[in-house]
Amino acid sequence: MKIITAKTAGFCFGVKRAIDIAFRMAREKCEGVYTLGPIIHNPQVVEKLKEKGIVPIEEVNTKKDVKALIIRTHGIPLNLSKKIVSKGCEIIDTTCPFVKKAQYYAKLLSEEGYQIVILGEKNHPEVKSLKSYANNDAIVTDGKAPLMKLKTKVGIIVQTTQTLEALKKVLSDALEHAKEIKVYNTICNSTAIRLKETEKMAGEVDVMFVVGGKNSANTTQLTKLCKSLSVPTYHIETSSEIRKEWTEGAKKIGITAGASTPDWIIKEVQKRIRYIGG
Amino acid sequence: MKIITAKTAGFCFGVKRAIDIAFRMAREKCEGVYTLGPIIHNPQVVEKLKEKGIVPIEEVNTKKDVKALIIRTHGIPLNLSKKIVSKGCEIIDTTCPFVKKAQYYAKLLSEEGYQIVILGEKNHPEVKSLKSYANNDAIVTDGKAPLMKLKTKVGIIVQTTQTLEALKKVLSDALEHAKEIKVYNTICNSTAIRLKETEKMAGEVDVMFVVGGKNSANTTQLTKLCKSLSVPTYHIETSSEIRKEWTEGAKKIGITAGASTPDWIIKEVQKRIRYIGG
Repeated sequence: MKIITAKTAGFCFGVKRAIDIAFRMAREKCEGVYTLGPIIHNPQVVEKLKEKGIVPIEEVNTKKDVKALIIRTHGIPLNLSKKIVSKGCEIIDTTCPFVKKAQYYAKLLSEEGYQIVILGEKNHPEVKSLKSYANNDAIVTDGKAPLMKLKTKVGIIVQTTQTLEALKKVLSDALEHAKEIKVYNTICNSTAIRLKETEKMAGEVDVMFVVGGKNSANTTQLTKLCKSLSVPTYHIETSSEIRKEWTEGAKKIGITAGASTPDWIIKEVQKRIRYIGG
Repeated sequence: MKIITAKTAGFCFGVKRAIDIAFRMAREKCEGVYTLGPIIHNPQVVEKLKEKGIVPIEEVNTKKDVKALIIRTHGIPLNLSKKIVSKGCEIIDTTCPFVKKAQYYAKLLSEEGYQIVILGEKNHPEVKSLKSYANNDAIVTDGKAPLMKLKTKVGIIVQTTQTLEALKKVLSDALEHAKEIKVYNTICNSTAIRLKETEKMAGEVDVMFVVGGKNSANTTQLTKLCKSLSVPTYHIETSSEIRKEWTEGAKKIGITAGASTPDWIIKEVQKRIRYIGG
């Protein structure tokens, strides 16, 4: 049995940066430091941080000893930032620089008078943060249903983990209504490259393992892609979920992982497959 | 035999405006007034104007008694305007207001630092004029060949007679390269509506007649559309071209015409078909 792992599997630039900052805070034993919500969409990493003393809290008010809040990679809404600051709490901002860029463009388009359309998942924290920079009156679309009732001047930004195909569709839709469109393609390259490598791999193997948080948008996207290519695909968070029968008869097994999946989990998955395969 | 004529056949707003101005000059017997090139792409109208004393000249220098030049609906390059003015010659500008708008956007995008892409026919006077407003360094594409080597910041404008489908394609192409795109959909609505009505009509008749200048881009586009729908289609400039055998056996005949085709030519075509049909 041959096991191949995608070169692009695991932490992207933004996630690596955020996790490095958080673990440094843990190492330095900074007191009163919390993450606001999970720092990334990977429960195992969040758990490990907890063990080191960096605990996530869901709301700004829940702990009295909060001195500093680590802002997750996906970013937070603008007025939440203001609220944190107004409480005299320090912000340790690990928002991905690419998300920051998208936030900036949302603000710019809004100031320039464009009706803003965000291509993304309505309930994703990144999209919620982007929306706040667009005065909270942006239209959010997942690119499936056609856009309705747009104004003549439309500005488009994109959740960093979306696909170019989806953006093309939204843009075509918007052209049916708007006379002036300004679009910032804020799709993160690493997402596109990871999807491309995964697509190629899925066509060459008998079974695909997609490793990452069940709550991770980009990991779920990888799973959907593999399944659409009719290769048996398993989305797992850790190696403990792997069942022996999944790999029976498989000659070539592919492993890919989302942007928020740490190396040590990927290595455990490789080890476990090798173990049951042998 | 039933003959139906498209409601949208013939002069659009911009052409009607230009022709009204030119014939008024003729009626008022203004001396030394010429059109720079054909005022519209219809040889019969140009001929009629000539009879009334408004003659087209190809270059600014060819006649010594030129006092005023009527600028065609398609517009002229910016430095040509300057040249005319510098010669002390008056400009009577009948550039279509929609083309004027596209010229303005070309200038604006250029000033804002965008690399400009014009969707249009390279050698069409309108496109040549648009290009001049974009500092003459715009890329012109007919939307067929994919766009290559674009910069990260791209501005798109469109020849007024292009289709929305072609614009969608160019935009999708541009997204493969650029990170920021600003597009002004300068397609004239009347073109889109005329194409739509013609498409519907072509599906319901046995023969289509498309009336208009052989040098008219939008008339040629109507012909191409009908031919692509497999209905026998004849592009004619005047009724004298119609052959009896073209309508033999036809129960329903459709007539459409380009934006530069005058009413009297359409009426002659209706009359001639009725005559040979009866």
